[in-house]
Amino acid sequence: MSKGAETRERIIDRAYMVAGRLGIEGVTIGALADELNLSKSGLFAHFGSKEDLQLEVLKEGERRFQEIVIKPALKAPRGLPRLKKLFELWVDWDSNPRNPGGCIFITASVELDDREGRTRDYLVATQRNLLSFMTGAVRLCVEAGHFRPDIDCEQFAHEAYGLVLSHNHFKRLLRDPNAEKHASKAFERLVRSVQR
Amino acid sequence: MSKGAETRERIIDRAYMVAGRLGIEGVTIGALADELNLSKSGLFAHFGSKEDLQLEVLKEGERRFQEIVIKPALKAPRGLPRLKKLFELWVDWDSNPRNPGGCIFITASVELDDREGRTRDYLVATQRNLLSFMTGAVRLCVEAGHFRPDIDCEQFAHEAYGLVLSHNHFKRLLRDPNAEKHASKAFERLVRSVQR
Repeated sequence: MSKGAETRERIIDRAYMVAGRLGIEGVTIGALADELNLSKSGLFAHFGSKEDLQLEVLKEGERRFQEIVIKPALKAPRGLPRLKKLFELWVDWDSNPRNPGGCIFITASVELDDREGRTRDYLVATQRNLLSFMTGAVRLCVEAGHFRPDIDCEQFAHEAYGLVLSHNHFKRLLRDPNAEKHASKAFERLVRSVQR
Repeated sequence: MSKGAETRERIIDRAYMVAGRLGIEGVTIGALADELNLSKSGLFAHFGSKEDLQLEVLKEGERRFQEIVIKPALKAPRGLPRLKKLFELWVDWDSNPRNPGGCIFITASVELDDREGRTRDYLVATQRNLLSFMTGAVRLCVEAGHFRPDIDCEQFAHEAYGLVLSHNHFKRLLRDPNAEKHASKAFERLVRSVQR
């Protein structure tokens, strides 16, 4: 890896940490230059603006999500085993050591819901893709004969996403030791309700 | 109302608006003094610190939640009618005109989950109370004979909370026109799963 690419990677890694702690609005060229002992102009050479940097933070989140959640889930057999694996990994994602500040997408969602721009557009795209992926995984359960053919796959994905959000809220804010138990119990009930 | 109380109310109202837009970390004495055309020292006379002001913003959120969600729900008959009313009002709360920035508790949760202090403690207490209130409303459904006696009332409350979080996420971030339909369909399924 070239020196430039290495520095760029180091900047993004640190920016990702800062975003986990302070939100993506906390990721500013000035604050990062201080943390990394780089000049502001050095940072500008890699990222033209605060917005570029924030976008890179979300892209880094997307890479980690693919690596930690999506790819391992795809290794499980199609149908219910894959869907279950996807849900488990997704619930664990929030407390993965590579996400010290929790899920960057939830943090960014709260910050960007009322703002317009490239960063919001990118975030919305990741969330739509995620929902499509989940909906597809549910559809494979139907095709494999694990779920009834008349079910609403998108509705299932919405509800499963709700369980993940609820889990994160109870675990991170309320530090509820039963958050995982509640999430898995709810998921099992959701699955039972659509099984043949 | 005294002049002082009036000014105080005006400050809190504006601080609540700012928090909806920028998060409670965006509520600073300096920024508010500018918005309200007051001196910083004038603001300090009402609120001793940024933390006091942020705490007042959460207390204002709690007052509005009581007024917009809890009190009208309590007017519905005990049991399933009240639980349904509570869920509907809670789903609508996020887009109530008095919450132009959405649910202040969700915004603050993301900001405060990793920080310690009075503001976080207050927020956690509101969320625990809310969960207890919801659990109590489910228990009344059992007592009224609307739900089976062997159900886990707290689990139900967790899941219902998840549906609200999911609704807000899809509605505010993805601007999904079907967010409400998904939430009410999910709630109906949840209710059916515990009915006698």
